Amino acid sequence: MKGTLIVLGIGPGSPEMMSQAARREIEESQVIVGYTRYLSLVKDLIQGKETFGTGMTKETERVRESLNLAATGKRVCLISSGDAGVYGMAGLALELQYAMELEDQVEVKVVPGITAANSCASLLGAPLMHDFAVISLSDLLTPKETILRRLELAAEGDFVTVLYNPKSKKRVDHIEQARQIYLKHRKGSTPVGVVNEAYRETCEVMITTLDELEGLYDRIHMGSTVIIGNSATRRMGDRMVTPRGYEV
Amino acid sequence: MKGTLIVLGIGPGSPEMMSQAARREIEESQVIVGYTRYLSLVKDLIQGKETFGTGMTKETERVRESLNLAATGKRVCLISSGDAGVYGMAGLALELQYAMELEDQVEVKVVPGITAANSCASLLGAPLMHDFAVISLSDLLTPKETILRRLELAAEGDFVTVLYNPKSKKRVDHIEQARQIYLKHRKGSTPVGVVNEAYRETCEVMITTLDELEGLYDRIHMGSTVIIGNSATRRMGDRMVTPRGYEV
Repeated sequence: MKGTLIVLGIGPGSPEMMSQAARREIEESQVIVGYTRYLSLVKDLIQGKETFGTGMTKETERVRESLNLAATGKRVCLISSGDAGVYGMAGLALELQYAMELEDQVEVKVVPGITAANSCASLLGAPLMHDFAVISLSDLLTPKETILRRLELAAEGDFVTVLYNPKSKKRVDHIEQARQIYLKHRKGSTPVGVVNEAYRETCEVMITTLDELEGLYDRIHMGSTVIIGNSATRRMGDRMVTPRGYEV
Repeated sequence: MKGTLIVLGIGPGSPEMMSQAARREIEESQVIVGYTRYLSLVKDLIQGKETFGTGMTKETERVRESLNLAATGKRVCLISSGDAGVYGMAGLALELQYAMELEDQVEVKVVPGITAANSCASLLGAPLMHDFAVISLSDLLTPKETILRRLELAAEGDFVTVLYNPKSKKRVDHIEQARQIYLKHRKGSTPVGVVNEAYRETCEVMITTLDELEGLYDRIHMGSTVIIGNSATRRMGDRMVTPRGYEV
């Protein structure tokens, strides 16, 4: 019997933000694999099921193990937060399915979720009403020159820009380099939103400007998302809005 | 009593792809406003409620009316497909809330949904594993020069690129101009995915290349989303995958 590996994003972290489809996939799976932290977010759904909780590294091993389990005919669900298709495990699952020559034994199914760009935008107001770029500041898998070059081009093109992984304990300088690049192309008064832990109990929503973003560096970490407005983005009360162009 | 306007995206079109939070907001609202087509997608949830269905234009009037209704103290839900925060009604709702000076009478709440970039990516495989740009090819509200310039910069920066509104009945040439721009920066063999009506019964998923995209123009319309791979994107069987950079 052909097994199934479902690669699934549960959204920003509140089980309420998960789709019905994702919930059903979890309920219908026999084995649930994911970071211990994510498993705890869906603990009510996975009671009584076989689970594998893991720490925050060894992605390749985790996906390989999930595929091997599915190859025994089981229905395996690999869960992550946000959308598994954005800097997530969906690509690795498909790459390894082919590298391990499991196309005939395992079907890989990707179930979309609400990614940080969208969940954080909703908490900030409406910053993504116009063309935007999504860039990860992590250089673990991407050369730093590539990251800087993309920031430069996105800034030049007046894209609203969503920064994933803006800062980690070891990597603290990229966010300032990004800020300097954007200051070459946009006013210091450009609104910038910072959201920590969207839709969790520890959620924080902050709006500042490119000029004053420095003052928030202490509060930016791996669970943060930063959204830099374009030249039309305005602050309206406690919201950040990029007009699409309608006459109001 | 302060009223509430909830601006809500139901995701790609199957009610199953809506979040629990979105479903609850619809259930708790007194008035539901939206395109007739979207209202029909959630008809089971809105039985017995006051509804306003409208055609595909007059966005400003629709939002203004929704705000006026909310200002009477009601809980009004303005629904759209995808994510209301991406080229949607969220921005207009916040802009008009301020323009109409309703900050004290109406609370505007944005509830995120799964946008076409993510729903279409999941059907294609995993094209958004790396930095990406989202660009609308509609010039109804954006000067054409801005669109072309952003395409040029996104192509140059090797961003995976998601094209919203790639073609309409009256506007058929932008998609070809986009293709020509990407061909200056990427190989003709670069995978390109086209998804029509994601997660609806009429859903179509197609994978081609930059060279051969022309052959699909007849099948691309306003309900299509086009995803152009970056220089690393590969086709694997019937999937399109952008490796994130793990060793497999």
